[in-house]
Amino acid sequence: MPAPLANDTFLRACLSQPTEYTPVWLMRQAGRYLPEYRATRARAGSFMGLATSPDFATEVTLQPLERFPLDAAILFSDILTVPDAMGLGLSFAEGEGPRFANPLRDEAAVARLEVPDMARLRYVFDAVASIRRALAGKVPLIGFAGSPWTLACYMVEGAGSDDYRLVKTMLYDRPDLLHRILAINAEAVARYLNAQIDAGAQAVMIFDSWGGVLADGAFQAFSLAYTQRVFGLLQRDADGRRVPHIVFTKGGGPWLEAIAASGADVIGVDWTVHLGHARQRVGPGIALQGNLDPAALFADAAAIEREVAGVLAGFGVADGEGGSNGHVFNLGHGISQHAPPESVAVLVDAVHRLSPPYHGART
Amino acid sequence: MPAPLANDTFLRACLSQPTEYTPVWLMRQAGRYLPEYRATRARAGSFMGLATSPDFATEVTLQPLERFPLDAAILFSDILTVPDAMGLGLSFAEGEGPRFANPLRDEAAVARLEVPDMARLRYVFDAVASIRRALAGKVPLIGFAGSPWTLACYMVEGAGSDDYRLVKTMLYDRPDLLHRILAINAEAVARYLNAQIDAGAQAVMIFDSWGGVLADGAFQAFSLAYTQRVFGLLQRDADGRRVPHIVFTKGGGPWLEAIAASGADVIGVDWTVHLGHARQRVGPGIALQGNLDPAALFADAAAIEREVAGVLAGFGVADGEGGSNGHVFNLGHGISQHAPPESVAVLVDAVHRLSPPYHGART
Repeated sequence: MPAPLANDTFLRACLSQPTEYTPVWLMRQAGRYLPEYRATRARAGSFMGLATSPDFATEVTLQPLERFPLDAAILFSDILTVPDAMGLGLSFAEGEGPRFANPLRDEAAVARLEVPDMARLRYVFDAVASIRRALAGKVPLIGFAGSPWTLACYMVEGAGSDDYRLVKTMLYDRPDLLHRILAINAEAVARYLNAQIDAGAQAVMIFDSWGGVLADGAFQAFSLAYTQRVFGLLQRDADGRRVPHIVFTKGGGPWLEAIAASGADVIGVDWTVHLGHARQRVGPGIALQGNLDPAALFADAAAIEREVAGVLAGFGVADGEGGSNGHVFNLGHGISQHAPPESVAVLVDAVHRLSPPYHGART
Repeated sequence: MPAPLANDTFLRACLSQPTEYTPVWLMRQAGRYLPEYRATRARAGSFMGLATSPDFATEVTLQPLERFPLDAAILFSDILTVPDAMGLGLSFAEGEGPRFANPLRDEAAVARLEVPDMARLRYVFDAVASIRRALAGKVPLIGFAGSPWTLACYMVEGAGSDDYRLVKTMLYDRPDLLHRILAINAEAVARYLNAQIDAGAQAVMIFDSWGGVLADGAFQAFSLAYTQRVFGLLQRDADGRRVPHIVFTKGGGPWLEAIAASGADVIGVDWTVHLGHARQRVGPGIALQGNLDPAALFADAAAIEREVAGVLAGFGVADGEGGSNGHVFNLGHGISQHAPPESVAVLVDAVHRLSPPYHGART
């Protein structure tokens, strides 16, 4: 029996319900900017050694929460666990990005692709359960997966890419092959997120990191349609509660109206978007997550506080009543490895201190 | 006395006047995807050897026009000629991007910065005059410069950057220093473009390649305000005609309304933008330039033609009458060095063949 939540502010904001202040967490909050993360990473020997060990994953997931009064934890893992379980052979060479030994380069490889047995991802679900126990109800735990499109980019390119030449050539020349990959990815991601929910994830997020490289039209057909399919397959938690669905498309500003119709409860937005305008575009009942420029963390404390105030004011009053929108404060992208931890403390404090006036309906 | 223009379709489209078809040119059309460019580049010995020689610059500017019936030529040069003339010491190491020996890293360096003597950029204006002579009125010649903000990124970072850490730290911590750089850049860019107009440039384009990395609010204050300042300082040509002003902000989709108020005649847009929606947002009398996904050139001919048709249909009827918008076909970003030249032929042909029905007012 898990402990009751001491702080459910994040979950209420996700569902556009009233909160006393604006909850905050940071994408990649358990990461290289923290010396204690780097120490654990060194002990684990490799990134995959860290990600595949429930004990290590629990340790690093909790590290930022010991430093900062964040309102949510997020599973420490990687979006590429799913294609790795499909047999594509993931590795992380030191100082480089991820690489697949067996990328999908021809029709035969695509034909062989299957939804993986979730037993191969057991280490992820064990980590979720372990983190829930360690959190002991302090804050909610977010589970996550890559979007079907973003996974397909890596699966076809075999690594990160500047121009997405291979996957886009497939998109334009052989859309049937890409649709097959995406359909399998959507089914796999849905099973993966449902298993995380079974293990205790209290919200789930889809990282559509590369949706923004698609042309208008292609985004809707090759990325959003499959994110929507995943959302349609997600289950409620063991108590029958809706587990909030979050989607973050970097560069997704042009398509907020369409994303709002995907079944998401929360739309993550990058820092090019004005949150007040975004609220008008997505309509009531959809929460927004974001969107401080991650580079603001390189600035001094006064500047960070000023920029936080600007994001809060841009969103405006979030009373959660009468069809308003919730606001979850975050960066507009993952935190930089070069961000000073003390700047994160300034950010979190500023959000908590400056946001209550925007939640007047509860006072 | 320059030859009269045989084909002014591009200039008319820029000014949202009627045309018989949609004119087309490609960003970086004189570039590495062409074997004849690579041959000239090898003879010149280095990129700067190529860019600083009016003869070589003329040769490579005309190369794509000899292969494809493009509707405009664009000066072969680099946006970093201006900070180089400011004494920052530009170099291009083989296989790497540009690098400045003397980036702006402290207050003293910023204080020393001055608008450069345009005589140091004489080679550019000589190239413009030489290209005009060589074109002999075939199509118009576009001159260009980097936006004040984009130049500042390179001048502060000293090279390309993934996170713009140094220039953004200055933006947040010492906006006064950044505003000084931007004011000098704006004055320098305006003089530079006016000298190109004097030398024969028939349209001018500002490449705001890095505007899209700025946060909402910061874009308007640190990028667009200075582009607008440049546009306000531009002169007419020797015959008193308006020289069309083009601005391209990669990732600028969120800010089209603001960009439309900058004094631009033409707004370049990347492929995430739906041109029909963009027309509604910018209002009548502003032309749009773009916006095929450059990766579409990796596809087969049928797919390229289908994607071209989609861009044309997305824009819709461009009759140039009654407060309509002009459309200049282009890619949504520079052409890839890996694009097959034969695919460019397919693209140009498709635009010319499929676009006349969208210009029905002239038939």
